[in-house]
Amino acid sequence: MDALGVRGGARLGDDCALLQPAPGTQLAISSDMLVQGRHFLSTVDPAALGHKALAVNLSDLAACGAKPLAFTLALALPNADDAWLAPFSRGLLALADEHGCQLIGGDTTRGPLNICITVFGEVPVLNGKSQALLRSGAQVGDDIYVSGNLGDARLALEVFRGAVSVPAELFAQARLRMEQPTPRVALGMALRGIATAAIDVSDGLLGDLGHVLKASRVGATIRTEITINLIATYADYTRAAGQFDAFLSEKQRLNCVLAGGDDYELVFTAPASAQAAVLAASAQANVRVTRIGQIDAAPGIRLLDAQGQLQPDDYDSFDHFG
Amino acid sequence: MDALGVRGGARLGDDCALLQPAPGTQLAISSDMLVQGRHFLSTVDPAALGHKALAVNLSDLAACGAKPLAFTLALALPNADDAWLAPFSRGLLALADEHGCQLIGGDTTRGPLNICITVFGEVPVLNGKSQALLRSGAQVGDDIYVSGNLGDARLALEVFRGAVSVPAELFAQARLRMEQPTPRVALGMALRGIATAAIDVSDGLLGDLGHVLKASRVGATIRTEITINLIATYADYTRAAGQFDAFLSEKQRLNCVLAGGDDYELVFTAPASAQAAVLAASAQANVRVTRIGQIDAAPGIRLLDAQGQLQPDDYDSFDHFG
Repeated sequence: MDALGVRGGARLGDDCALLQPAPGTQLAISSDMLVQGRHFLSTVDPAALGHKALAVNLSDLAACGAKPLAFTLALALPNADDAWLAPFSRGLLALADEHGCQLIGGDTTRGPLNICITVFGEVPVLNGKSQALLRSGAQVGDDIYVSGNLGDARLALEVFRGAVSVPAELFAQARLRMEQPTPRVALGMALRGIATAAIDVSDGLLGDLGHVLKASRVGATIRTEITINLIATYADYTRAAGQFDAFLSEKQRLNCVLAGGDDYELVFTAPASAQAAVLAASAQANVRVTRIGQIDAAPGIRLLDAQGQLQPDDYDSFDHFG
Repeated sequence: MDALGVRGGARLGDDCALLQPAPGTQLAISSDMLVQGRHFLSTVDPAALGHKALAVNLSDLAACGAKPLAFTLALALPNADDAWLAPFSRGLLALADEHGCQLIGGDTTRGPLNICITVFGEVPVLNGKSQALLRSGAQVGDDIYVSGNLGDARLALEVFRGAVSVPAELFAQARLRMEQPTPRVALGMALRGIATAAIDVSDGLLGDLGHVLKASRVGATIRTEITINLIATYADYTRAAGQFDAFLSEKQRLNCVLAGGDDYELVFTAPASAQAAVLAASAQANVRVTRIGQIDAAPGIRLLDAQGQLQPDDYDSFDHFG
């Protein structure tokens, strides 16, 4: 990465930032806009919000297998409030530093709170072929994997909404997942050349997997008895007490996992022959991955329970525009 | 420009857009966020707003001498309103097409109206040296030039605010300048290797020239008898009637020109020896340029009238955050 004006920072005050990807690489670019009441609650800690605003963008880079380089930040604020801006910047820049991702420019204005980040990552091009992970490469017979855990962010949201009530300790864990997601950048990079397709789970597993299936013109079968345990903080908490149904029904847990959204995990596909390579990538990135099903030819998603019985898919996808 | 996934558009549906600058070039990147009531009025025609949202970003590329390549659009809308979105997109994409600048990705969400565009342009690197126009290169003795006209956008704003009243024909011309500015992309590219420093006039001539002076550690002297005529639609209209003071006082006209903002013209510097080259660039880009003053060593900006008398600088800069 020869980033004129980026490493040196000399060009930050100019009309444009200047960025030069290394020879043999291309830039992966993604933009996300966060609006209060839709992507975060007014009660959120500004430092956590700063983290999340960048995390959701880094998650898009992770889904492409791109190495983070830099980002721009455009920010509308109701008023120039240092008591808000200081912790927001601290949370934002801490995550940026962790990933070596430099703030190279942006815009601030007065207006209803709105955070728009555009992030830039680097992807190798080998023999003229981009190594970016795409949505369109899933093949019939591929295994489907998910990184980390799913559903905890939705659990926290449902508690905020007053729809469910859980012990404070469990809520605190789930809230951390909602407010400070961990973008799976190292895993995405480790999966280059291994995964056939990938996407990050921002709107819910079924919806986002659906985008992969559509782009790849395939379908999928998912095992619900495996996926239900991906709501990890809940499972951990209730397993200790042996009370899985204490606060959420099985249906509610599955709804959180399958349609929860805001997880920022990766869902990806790989051929069975690549299983060892997937596990090696998982170990290298220090992120657990779980095999939740398989790609098949028939369009759509089929949910199978532990007995192999087809389950109705009546899970609502979590849509930020809906 | 070998833009994988851009020319073909194949990667538009993925988590990231993929962009590969041509060998020997670097990317110029700029982000601007537009908020209703601050950057545009609620009465604006959506097609004009689509034009303006991209124009202000292209203007940043112009100020760097970059060739437009692509942009991302993040959009928050109070509701999914096709009657608004269709003309907005039409205005946006018409200007994009005019500059060969392709929409490569973005985000839409529900929220108070907010438009955030990040634009990408290409700048040559010759013998390891970026050809981007910067703010920091102005030298003592350089001439200071402005492209096109200044102050008409501010005139329109003052009419909207009810502060002044002008004939409908004059207002219509000024309003067009405010709502559909013309980014000086061709001029910026033609000035590469000629101008020593450049910036676009978004917040007002004095304020933006001030950024150049600060970055270059120099000062400037400006001739007010030349700059006052840059408010072109007004000058044209009143010249015909021989009534320059009919609607605006001299002070008001100067205020529009010097501190108006929203002009999206270029102010740039060049040595006296480059005057012929500047005029050739102006002719090539088909944009008039006016020499308004000179760079000198003493910090700050001095305003001189036709008699060479120093004028007080009590012009307010138009600050989008103020």
